[in-house]
Amino acid sequence: MKTIKIFAPATVANLGCGFDVAGMAIDGTGDIIEVGVEEGEGIEISNRSEVPLPDDIESNVATPAVRALLAAYGKEVAVRITILKKILPGSGIGSSAASSAGAVWGLNEVLGRPFSPERLVEFAMEGESLIGGGARHADNVAPAILGGVVLIRGYEPLDIVRLPIPDNFYAAVVHPHITVTTREGRGVLPREIPLKTATTQWGNVGGLVAGLALGDMALVGRSMKDAVAEPVRKRFIPGYDSLHDALFAAGALGVNIAGSGPAVFAVCDTLAGAEKLCEVMAAHFAALEIPADTYSSKISGEGARVI
Amino acid sequence: MKTIKIFAPATVANLGCGFDVAGMAIDGTGDIIEVGVEEGEGIEISNRSEVPLPDDIESNVATPAVRALLAAYGKEVAVRITILKKILPGSGIGSSAASSAGAVWGLNEVLGRPFSPERLVEFAMEGESLIGGGARHADNVAPAILGGVVLIRGYEPLDIVRLPIPDNFYAAVVHPHITVTTREGRGVLPREIPLKTATTQWGNVGGLVAGLALGDMALVGRSMKDAVAEPVRKRFIPGYDSLHDALFAAGALGVNIAGSGPAVFAVCDTLAGAEKLCEVMAAHFAALEIPADTYSSKISGEGARVI
Repeated sequence: MKTIKIFAPATVANLGCGFDVAGMAIDGTGDIIEVGVEEGEGIEISNRSEVPLPDDIESNVATPAVRALLAAYGKEVAVRITILKKILPGSGIGSSAASSAGAVWGLNEVLGRPFSPERLVEFAMEGESLIGGGARHADNVAPAILGGVVLIRGYEPLDIVRLPIPDNFYAAVVHPHITVTTREGRGVLPREIPLKTATTQWGNVGGLVAGLALGDMALVGRSMKDAVAEPVRKRFIPGYDSLHDALFAAGALGVNIAGSGPAVFAVCDTLAGAEKLCEVMAAHFAALEIPADTYSSKISGEGARVI
Repeated sequence: MKTIKIFAPATVANLGCGFDVAGMAIDGTGDIIEVGVEEGEGIEISNRSEVPLPDDIESNVATPAVRALLAAYGKEVAVRITILKKILPGSGIGSSAASSAGAVWGLNEVLGRPFSPERLVEFAMEGESLIGGGARHADNVAPAILGGVVLIRGYEPLDIVRLPIPDNFYAAVVHPHITVTTREGRGVLPREIPLKTATTQWGNVGGLVAGLALGDMALVGRSMKDAVAEPVRKRFIPGYDSLHDALFAAGALGVNIAGSGPAVFAVCDTLAGAEKLCEVMAAHFAALEIPADTYSSKISGEGARVI
């Protein structure tokens, strides 16, 4: 059996303002996934990580992603996927996306790269659909595959734009060990929003992209506001408002919820700054006696890759 | 009396997706305004253009803009404004904005430039408020003053970003001689929109800014979609759907309503292309026996200026 080992990074979706349309890769953590193929047919997934995952392959996000790739490939092969290291599910930093991304990236590699990275995003989205209650979104899988900061301009058809990345773009992320599923996180969202709120939000999306393009981290940070999801999702994160304020007091340029939470991210323009923000995050959850992991990362263009 | 003559360009607000947050200057047409100051107090506005304007200065958009500047300036002066050439009111290409922009730009010049261009935008917004039923928006006055393509990231506080402009950014604009007031154009808008619609819209705003930054005119064009205002405002523009299709067939990369209409704009990547789009626009309204003016323009960074 031909096998290959893949790293797929954790990701922060939404970036505050960009609900369902923006995300970035956090290179400090991710999944390690081994993918093998041989003659035959069928998909096997085994878990050698310390994180419990569903035994039933129909419940594993990698399965629909792999099936979508195989359907496009058009030839039968037997696929074996081994999950070696796993971001905790329900973290808000793209746990499911990293699995799907790693699986399709690895499978594409062992098959001799029949598909472009952008096409792999489409396959990986099938995994997101499984856990998102049918909602197809790419704001985690696209950066997990492509790296860096990615805009999904549109979904019909899928239109993915790799955004410029300032040299001084750093992020701190905290993952408190409480679980918010993607489904719960989406369930609290309003179905309609006032036009005025929407206008505020798309002004910020424009500001975020402009800040990235102009290398203006202050503009990036102050655009990472969210008038739609943050107000209803912060209830899942103990002490969110005080953490938010403490991070700004410690030099954060922008702070928000990562994806549907409970992870929280902050951005700044130095690595030392990001490390300091991690300390603030760790202290916040330690005081609440909630175990938490923190990650500081330079935001770079590296996505899923063979290791 | 110290006087100065100012050109302030016409502008296209919204740019499809960026309702209330984006606009660009069209250098081919605009207002010419003479501004004079002398010792004393009071504001006089006279109209030497061929366009009828209100006699009552309280109904002229330049008045609140000039008053806002004078209040910040803190010293009494007598201001005389003469409008020499005027974009038709109700055109959708920033008629009122050009007056306000030209008036405050000229007044700032004759007073020795006490204020930054960004501050002048704030003063000019008071004129927009007069005709917008109290709504303060800057998507015409900001590009009329600053030139080029401008993003208003946020209104509280006002946060204006000058966006990069691709070298091959050209636009065609048609102004059919039918009147849609800003108030009418705003009256048909929904107060709430589905979250899904909003998400589509802010994906496009991100794509628009990314396209400008990356010099990708195809991305700029396909981002100029509007799921919010265009569907309800196109009723004011005879044959809008067929004009829209004819412009794409003639090579337009993006087409939409300028501001609240009835002007329509299209973008492309050559001057010859823009001229061809103007011909399509002219033919469309000629066939409907509606008089119309067309303008082709390279989008450049020049805004209001002394001439």
